[in-house]
Amino acid sequence: MVIPKRSVFFISDGTGITAETLGLSLLAHFDGVAFRQVRLPFIDSREKAQEALARIDMAEAEDGQRAILMLTLVSTEIRAMFEGCGALTLDLFGTFTSQIAAELSLQPAAFIGMSRRTANNEYRERIEAINYTLAHDDGITDSGLQDADVILVGVSRSGKTPTSLYLAMHFGIRVANYPIIPEDLERMELPGRLREYRNKLFGLSIEPERLSLIRNERLPNSQYAALDNCRKEIQLARQLMRSEDIHWLDSTSRSVEEIAAMILQQMNLKAALMPYGSA
Amino acid sequence: MVIPKRSVFFISDGTGITAETLGLSLLAHFDGVAFRQVRLPFIDSREKAQEALARIDMAEAEDGQRAILMLTLVSTEIRAMFEGCGALTLDLFGTFTSQIAAELSLQPAAFIGMSRRTANNEYRERIEAINYTLAHDDGITDSGLQDADVILVGVSRSGKTPTSLYLAMHFGIRVANYPIIPEDLERMELPGRLREYRNKLFGLSIEPERLSLIRNERLPNSQYAALDNCRKEIQLARQLMRSEDIHWLDSTSRSVEEIAAMILQQMNLKAALMPYGSA
Repeated sequence: MVIPKRSVFFISDGTGITAETLGLSLLAHFDGVAFRQVRLPFIDSREKAQEALARIDMAEAEDGQRAILMLTLVSTEIRAMFEGCGALTLDLFGTFTSQIAAELSLQPAAFIGMSRRTANNEYRERIEAINYTLAHDDGITDSGLQDADVILVGVSRSGKTPTSLYLAMHFGIRVANYPIIPEDLERMELPGRLREYRNKLFGLSIEPERLSLIRNERLPNSQYAALDNCRKEIQLARQLMRSEDIHWLDSTSRSVEEIAAMILQQMNLKAALMPYGSA
Repeated sequence: MVIPKRSVFFISDGTGITAETLGLSLLAHFDGVAFRQVRLPFIDSREKAQEALARIDMAEAEDGQRAILMLTLVSTEIRAMFEGCGALTLDLFGTFTSQIAAELSLQPAAFIGMSRRTANNEYRERIEAINYTLAHDDGITDSGLQDADVILVGVSRSGKTPTSLYLAMHFGIRVANYPIIPEDLERMELPGRLREYRNKLFGLSIEPERLSLIRNERLPNSQYAALDNCRKEIQLARQLMRSEDIHWLDSTSRSVEEIAAMILQQMNLKAALMPYGSA
């Protein structure tokens, strides 16, 4: 059976990241089509729109099918150029801004300044959160823990670092993370001064089979990666978290985004997603 | 003048991050309203939907206005519960999946498995890219540079680290980054073995005034942060990048997302956004 090809273009006068984020979620609803995805960012002039239209034409000729365009364009003039080109055009902004405008009895702004969003405090807090989180990765230091919003704990390779960075980058949350090492498990005690910050602690666990797989990629055939050892570490780590009354979740089949959203929810942190600098 | 309040709920059976990402872009079109934003993730049962509806009721009573709901819900049953509640309901998925379904002559899937997206290679590549990028932050090591997709260079505090992490986290790009330090500028030579990887190099510059501000937050009243010194470093760094024929951009009033998207575009990297583990 031949799987039909279909080109999908995410077209934006900004980064195109918003269009691509929603677009990927939409395409995930459909099996049986080979989507070829192209992001066309910074389409902010008639000339760039013309070039984009030429690329779309070529893709349609190759596919033998019209393309699907997902637009986050503020300019009505440039939007009209794509809407008239014969492709299926999904206007991700206009579809909803007109409904919101009617609801609020307001006109949507025709131009969204970029700099107004990077000069603000939210953006600086976010960069500060990234710096804080990097400086407190993997138990590097015990100092400054009073400034952490969350302190993640878990055995080596349970997903602490990517989760910490995601929380910092997207929600401006300051995260410290600490490995629970075999010595901690022997003593059945949390590392360093973590008990002083009990209300900030959150645990990550993982299925031993998956942990063994991940550790084997790093240190093949080591005691560190052996399934038996992973089983033992995980069992003791869960026991330690229970005895210290630390909430934890299993990272095994969850994406970084899911883990981050669950931590925010369970710790009752009100962090809002940081606005993107540009759509 | 009293600014009217309006509650906006991002409601999802997944993380709610897609809804919030598009939602913030939509709300940015409107000035003059104080939006109160609430993310309600993991609404995947009738019970959780009921709880959410109770929160919406309370917010509407407080605002004296109906709420705006932005939904990324796969279940038609749960979606219907919100659509019948009297709030302005924007169905971010269904609005477009029905158009795409008609175009493709396919039915949208009613359930999007989460694990299918974290078990795949893309997800593992992304985690590997984060690990690579952390291990090659700030010129920590010269080894493994042949595996980098991009090597960022720039003076201290020009935005290299957040940009590197964003490229890794969202696009699965392996990034190494190198500070250009005063010693490099005196010799007018790139640090380490970077010349061997000229085709991977990309530069970040920044306006001296902004750089001085950022450095002053880190080391107040230092020579490092002095405006004169920043001016000199920036001028020499630009001279060095020109003489080494390195493409660069100015990070001053650009968000991390914008810088990342511009680097991908200018280096002609075809990286697609990594699909989120869940909407």
